[in-house]
Amino acid sequence: MSQQNVSRQDLPEQTEMHPTRWGDPARARPLPDEARGLVEMVFGVDDRPAVDEAPLAPPTVDAAALADLRAAVGDAHVRTDDATRRLRTRGKSTPDLLRARAGDLTDAPDVVVRPGDHDEVAAVLAVAAARHLAVVPFGGGTAVTGGLVARREGFGGVVSLDLVRMKRLLAVDHVSMTAVLEPGLRGPEAEALLAAEGLTLGHYPQSFEYATIGGFAATRSSGQSSAGYGRFDALVVGLTVATPVGRIDLGTAPASAAGPDLRQLFLGSEGTLGVLTAVTVRVRRLPAVKVYEGWRWPSFADGATAIRTLAQAGLLPTVVRLSDEAETAINLADPGAIGGAADAGCLMITGYEGEPAAVEAKQAAVTAVLTGLGGTPAGTAPGEKWAAGRFDAPYLRDSLLDAGVLVETLETATFWSNLDRLYTDVKAALTAHLGEPALVLCHISHVYETGCSLYFTVAATEGDEPLRRWQEAKSAACDAMIAAGATITHHHAVGWDHKPWYAQEIGPVGVSVMRAVKHALDPEGILNPGVLVP
Amino acid sequence: MSQQNVSRQDLPEQTEMHPTRWGDPARARPLPDEARGLVEMVFGVDDRPAVDEAPLAPPTVDAAALADLRAAVGDAHVRTDDATRRLRTRGKSTPDLLRARAGDLTDAPDVVVRPGDHDEVAAVLAVAAARHLAVVPFGGGTAVTGGLVARREGFGGVVSLDLVRMKRLLAVDHVSMTAVLEPGLRGPEAEALLAAEGLTLGHYPQSFEYATIGGFAATRSSGQSSAGYGRFDALVVGLTVATPVGRIDLGTAPASAAGPDLRQLFLGSEGTLGVLTAVTVRVRRLPAVKVYEGWRWPSFADGATAIRTLAQAGLLPTVVRLSDEAETAINLADPGAIGGAADAGCLMITGYEGEPAAVEAKQAAVTAVLTGLGGTPAGTAPGEKWAAGRFDAPYLRDSLLDAGVLVETLETATFWSNLDRLYTDVKAALTAHLGEPALVLCHISHVYETGCSLYFTVAATEGDEPLRRWQEAKSAACDAMIAAGATITHHHAVGWDHKPWYAQEIGPVGVSVMRAVKHALDPEGILNPGVLVP
Repeated sequence: MSQQNVSRQDLPEQTEMHPTRWGDPARARPLPDEARGLVEMVFGVDDRPAVDEAPLAPPTVDAAALADLRAAVGDAHVRTDDATRRLRTRGKSTPDLLRARAGDLTDAPDVVVRPGDHDEVAAVLAVAAARHLAVVPFGGGTAVTGGLVARREGFGGVVSLDLVRMKRLLAVDHVSMTAVLEPGLRGPEAEALLAAEGLTLGHYPQSFEYATIGGFAATRSSGQSSAGYGRFDALVVGLTVATPVGRIDLGTAPASAAGPDLRQLFLGSEGTLGVLTAVTVRVRRLPAVKVYEGWRWPSFADGATAIRTLAQAGLLPTVVRLSDEAETAINLADPGAIGGAADAGCLMITGYEGEPAAVEAKQAAVTAVLTGLGGTPAGTAPGEKWAAGRFDAPYLRDSLLDAGVLVETLETATFWSNLDRLYTDVKAALTAHLGEPALVLCHISHVYETGCSLYFTVAATEGDEPLRRWQEAKSAACDAMIAAGATITHHHAVGWDHKPWYAQEIGPVGVSVMRAVKHALDPEGILNPGVLVP
Repeated sequence: MSQQNVSRQDLPEQTEMHPTRWGDPARARPLPDEARGLVEMVFGVDDRPAVDEAPLAPPTVDAAALADLRAAVGDAHVRTDDATRRLRTRGKSTPDLLRARAGDLTDAPDVVVRPGDHDEVAAVLAVAAARHLAVVPFGGGTAVTGGLVARREGFGGVVSLDLVRMKRLLAVDHVSMTAVLEPGLRGPEAEALLAAEGLTLGHYPQSFEYATIGGFAATRSSGQSSAGYGRFDALVVGLTVATPVGRIDLGTAPASAAGPDLRQLFLGSEGTLGVLTAVTVRVRRLPAVKVYEGWRWPSFADGATAIRTLAQAGLLPTVVRLSDEAETAINLADPGAIGGAADAGCLMITGYEGEPAAVEAKQAAVTAVLTGLGGTPAGTAPGEKWAAGRFDAPYLRDSLLDAGVLVETLETATFWSNLDRLYTDVKAALTAHLGEPALVLCHISHVYETGCSLYFTVAATEGDEPLRRWQEAKSAACDAMIAAGATITHHHAVGWDHKPWYAQEIGPVGVSVMRAVKHALDPEGILNPGVLVP
């Protein structure tokens, strides 16, 4: 073994998320006048101030339990103050933000506990089992399907198990090209530690700046470079998990025929089966070159066929994305980049990362295929614009929510032969339930030989009951996904929000398996009660 | 959906396996005189005739249960004759053959039942649960780790659930490049049906000619072209499973974040959690070109470094294999092919399949890397020789067993940085326990970015107690694998033979998960009792 222990290094400065907004307040972007004018024209502006400092109910955890938790992790790491609890309340879906903006913090945890290593996590679980406390593992707080909300009934309180202190790069194996990461590392922190070794994970979801390694694994995240680097679950080689019944270490080899792949039970388990305390990932050398380009297609269908052709020829770039006509048209800031606004067709982004010769060869091969299929190169400007703004959409959502415009996203995936139907049906369901004025935009951003994801962005007026308005539209969209035989989520997990459809997707036998595994690992049911498991 | 229903087609003629030998009797190959001379020189020839027609104990299943089974699948498909039962007794490991050759058929099933579709499988399971019969799903009968032997105690008899009638290509989706196969299709049968559509699965394990689609999935098989096409578990998109508690259909999308990946519980489940009744696989277009070549390396370590370099550069050929010095030397039939026998170094085989331009480009890129790392091209002769004989080793084993030479294989996998240790320790364990004269050969045949498999072939004199002799050596090898942190099996499953080490590999928490899943899906414990689940 040539593993090296890597000491803790200086990490990028950490910013706490705002309780009612995304990300770093310093990076908030009020709508520019021009955009505000456009929003006013389409939706009507209806400024909606948020209640940022709503009061919390007093914590319900009793003194004896608090004392046990302090014994487990140290006094300094058990917090019950309002500010800390407020910041661990729910995630960052639009419904989460709407509730928080309205001052509804009923889902706040009672106590925030910060273990420093695997053994302290195990000690917290032991206390929680003995004192019958619900435990919500907490990483970046970027969940969008309700995965950070525990059912309270029957418990003596809710513990937010914050992994913020577990940010080490535990080992690097330069021969096997693997690294062992702690779960609390945010995307940029993990990349900084790996970059010091000349390595990268290459996992860049939109939540990259805040979401954590543990969260990526627990929700089966997929990054914008998934075509090149793979989904997060495909990057995971090994896992260490603290469960209420003990520790499990999985991942003895790159591949194995030793029974079912139990790693695949913990990937996507959303904190309900155990707490991931170390994640061994496949890493790659830092790319020497990154090139992002735009392509224009006459239609979404033409672009999708081109992507499918690349995927089935084994010629995928590192990044490949395709906006439908509506999303392309709404990217109005610089429509000239792909040749005019009104009939701009569909914009595709392709990205290449790696060694110069490999990038050049791949780019040439892809260019030949895309040109042959009727694509028109649009140069690097659209690609660079996309790359520069790739993590900014949640800030724009805040500004639109401020202006009374409801914005939310949802995503699914299916096989290529079913793509038209899924696209048409989900779009129709959203449009029908949101009424006018509403925008329904879509793009393909994760691609496989056999199919791809569809990611929808919706904008509509909030109306009097924005929560109910969204939930009805989303419910109809989810019904359409299941009716089309697609998956209820491609990379955002199940949480509370997708549970009814998840149960349909895996069927009654699947539900009984999930319940059996849950009971075996968490007999008291303390881990994220109510989340995922139907 | 552009799925097409494909009607049943003419399949290659099916040959039953011989009860004490591999494959088709017409293809048996007595040792040529020259080889027999060599065997005599090294081991001493000790001809050992097999007992081919040993008597069986009468079946124990009672008349009422037989009547229920007949009602489930039809009279013609319930068989209790000796010949049929004999051919469903155990698998084809060397211990299995030694027992059968000695006339020990104590593990014969009592009744062989042949359901024709999913519903009939479900009906058989219902009868078995009601009558408390053990059920052993049976495909090609090529198991090598004891997976076809049910524990009898506590059951009213053992049913061999033979999937021989379930051989349809149920659907082909040329857009998504997927196909739905029934579990009883042998490798050549599946390839013939797909070839009629211009497609291939590309899964070619050594057992290809007899093993079945259901068996590939249930044991996490890996084919000799795994570098290009992927392991079988990576080819599986969807599964339909008949369990004692109902049917489950899995695989709604190419990728999903909807909870744990439950397909990964049934892959590798060895018939203990349900019977796979349909397997949806990723398919590829039939390759226009197949090229196989040889390369010579100064040492096993040099060749392994070259393979690792290819894997981590994303430059793997379709096939890549590397024999160690001992295996290279024993491939004596044509040592001139790689330049002389005594100091022949190590032989690598590389294979390329696909469209001519893609093959040419990949071959050029790989050749540049291998040449740069010190490899010497050995032309196409060694590659073609390997390709021509790739499924023949089990016939040679029969001939060697006839001559009193014990031959068996075992395999493992680990990360690259651990490869030297694993190779050294397993080889030492085998050598120490087999004593002289014994040959221990090894090759790498399945390769990943983070590591690879090691496949050992052992030849030794049988001695008075060949079974015990092998079991002690194998046990020591398995201990060495676990001590080295490697997996107990890369592509041959757990069965009975690997259970003690499997339990160590997944640990007590993993064992409790397996038991919970087993109990949820098979509450009566009728499915392959004793196999896999610790």
